[in-house]
Amino acid sequence: MAAVTYELIKTCKQSGARLGRVHTPHGTFETPIFMPVGTLATVKTMSPEDLYDMNAQIILSNTYHLWLRPGHDIVKEAGGLHKFMNWDRPILTDSGGFQVFSLSDLRKIEEEGVHFRNHLSGEKLFLSPEGAMDIQNALGSDIMMAFDECPPYPAEYSYMKDSVERTSRWAERCIEAHKRPEDQGLFGIVQGGEYEELRKQSAKDLVSMDFPGYAIGGLSVGEPKDVMNRVLEFTTPWLPDNKPRYLMGVGSPDSLIDGAIRGIDMFDCVLPTRIARNGTCMTSEGRLVVRNAKFARDFRPLDENCDCHVCQNYSRAYIRHLIKCEETFGFRLTTYHNLYFLLNLMEQVRQAIRDDRLLDFREEFFEQYGFNKPNAKNF
Amino acid sequence: MAAVTYELIKTCKQSGARLGRVHTPHGTFETPIFMPVGTLATVKTMSPEDLYDMNAQIILSNTYHLWLRPGHDIVKEAGGLHKFMNWDRPILTDSGGFQVFSLSDLRKIEEEGVHFRNHLSGEKLFLSPEGAMDIQNALGSDIMMAFDECPPYPAEYSYMKDSVERTSRWAERCIEAHKRPEDQGLFGIVQGGEYEELRKQSAKDLVSMDFPGYAIGGLSVGEPKDVMNRVLEFTTPWLPDNKPRYLMGVGSPDSLIDGAIRGIDMFDCVLPTRIARNGTCMTSEGRLVVRNAKFARDFRPLDENCDCHVCQNYSRAYIRHLIKCEETFGFRLTTYHNLYFLLNLMEQVRQAIRDDRLLDFREEFFEQYGFNKPNAKNF
Ligand SMILES: [Zn+2]
Ligand SMILES: [Zn+2]
Repeated sequence: MAAVTYELIKTCKQSGARLGRVHTPHGTFETPIFMPVGTLATVKTMSPEDLYDMNAQIILSNTYHLWLRPGHDIVKEAGGLHKFMNWDRPILTDSGGFQVFSLSDLRKIEEEGVHFRNHLSGEKLFLSPEGAMDIQNALGSDIMMAFDECPPYPAEYSYMKDSVERTSRWAERCIEAHKRPEDQGLFGIVQGGEYEELRKQSAKDLVSMDFPGYAIGGLSVGEPKDVMNRVLEFTTPWLPDNKPRYLMGVGSPDSLIDGAIRGIDMFDCVLPTRIARNGTCMTSEGRLVVRNAKFARDFRPLDENCDCHVCQNYSRAYIRHLIKCEETFGFRLTTYHNLYFLLNLMEQVRQAIRDDRLLDFREEFFEQYGFNKPNAKNF
Repeated sequence: MAAVTYELIKTCKQSGARLGRVHTPHGTFETPIFMPVGTLATVKTMSPEDLYDMNAQIILSNTYHLWLRPGHDIVKEAGGLHKFMNWDRPILTDSGGFQVFSLSDLRKIEEEGVHFRNHLSGEKLFLSPEGAMDIQNALGSDIMMAFDECPPYPAEYSYMKDSVERTSRWAERCIEAHKRPEDQGLFGIVQGGEYEELRKQSAKDLVSMDFPGYAIGGLSVGEPKDVMNRVLEFTTPWLPDNKPRYLMGVGSPDSLIDGAIRGIDMFDCVLPTRIARNGTCMTSEGRLVVRNAKFARDFRPLDENCDCHVCQNYSRAYIRHLIKCEETFGFRLTTYHNLYFLLNLMEQVRQAIRDDRLLDFREEFFEQYGFNKPNAKNF
């Protein structure tokens, strides 16, 4: 029995979106789903109880960051990441590839792996497919990610083709190096930029290796929204129906809905938590920058249509006061609300799939959020 | 009926310490008690639910800070401090005097009040007994404090005598200016430094005004511990048995016990929350600096004898990791434990009074905490 399996419950007759279930060693979650990001073994400002309360079903944590601090050996000695951070639902860890390519200036890619410098200390480091598996096996996440090359955007076709081929060779080495396939499911990552032929090649290479799930990488890296949608449209047909599909790094409400419509099951992004710490909230009527002076005497909740604990108990005026004073409780409140908002949005998406009306839901949501206005921002 | 009343339940036969109850418009609490400090309408890093969970019965908030941010008018418009911060148990507010005297360099004391500069903006401000009452009436705290002069330590006798007399005149003006005596109890503050005669004079002045409770101010300002104990010993006999006694700014475990033994009922201090944010914890076996490298692989709880939520679920290694990474959840965990530790200590003190053995408890606690060691620190 594979550690991670996918069950397709139904397909939305109106949109083609998938309602499903992913089974993992730490329990089952329904898809499409949004995964809050807990970079350093904590979703910034949240407790596990906060996340249980808002009904978070799975969180993501970062291999690269945990490798550096506290070190995967310490997490392993603690009994694994679940026990270390007191979280008993599923955890997905990324491969470290994205951080190696985005945080580090001095990187050198070789067939064997990547040489780069620790973004904190400057120390020279090396990460390879085998290294990424070794760290993730120590962390004990339910879903691990293969170590891929994350090419820049935009990239030339020839560069991208070499990169895709290397990512496929690295994927094979990941399968080979993965030591706990009975406890941890390993997902492959489809790359290929905006080139249809390369996305197809990448998907076919990986599908031939029979991973229990597939991610689509290299999107949400600065490309226009219609490019992302087009890439999803020509990539997902090459992925098998009986495996989950994970779109990496996407967390704006519009892209979550548009991704689900294109057959995506899983999403993660730091967006809701990062903007929360800057005093910005997602609400049913669009973006609300609660730190603005106009909310100083506004005693309404962040979102009048939200039934989260924060909106039931705290005012914009109080939250603004806390954030202006840099009181961490203010960031707890905005973070809780933003995560609740996205988790609740995904529950609405799942309900719309059940009701075969996800395109209608998209229109209603976009209209109310303000996405249909000229020059609308994407969150 | 006075807004705040005190009921003496019993006196410890061994130590003379008092077990009592204070009744307020937002409920009753048992004394001796420790009050967590929520300076800016939040106990730093904690939610109200965290405080309810740890059984905090009353919190303190700071008039001076709320006056500056968000402004007492906004808190009043929100429906008062309880509603603004979502806390429905008792709140005590200080008078602002201590901050005016400790945070501000450019202060000038006149009979009318104090001129000083806003410690944030440098703006010129003025606070008087009437102003302090006006702000606290707007905040709507259950227990308000009279506006007193907080003299430097040490101070000459003649300076202190003038100061005590002014504080008495200001106390009369506070009673006069207090507009909500049916909703809010106003406590007087006994000053007089280490001078027995002046403490007696101050206490007699204030007791003649018949406040519903009395604080002892001007202690825990750098004087040796035996000076504090001696001042308490010659001051409390001048205070009536049927009113609560509040020792301001004291939160080290030894001083809490020694204060209770000298007839004190209420205490507050930023110590447990402030040291928590520096990675220092109070445990049954003494101070533990969890950020130290030696705890990197220590998977025991902060305090092996503590049954708080943190000690039941998180290791020193995890908490150290969070604090080293400046993750706010780490500060939540140390803050929660430290407050729980002091609240639990006060419950043990109350039990020892019930059992007429507070002096025995003191010896046992001091021995285990390490206070009896040579060069012991006081927390
Ligand atoms: Zn909400
Ligand atoms: Zn504890």
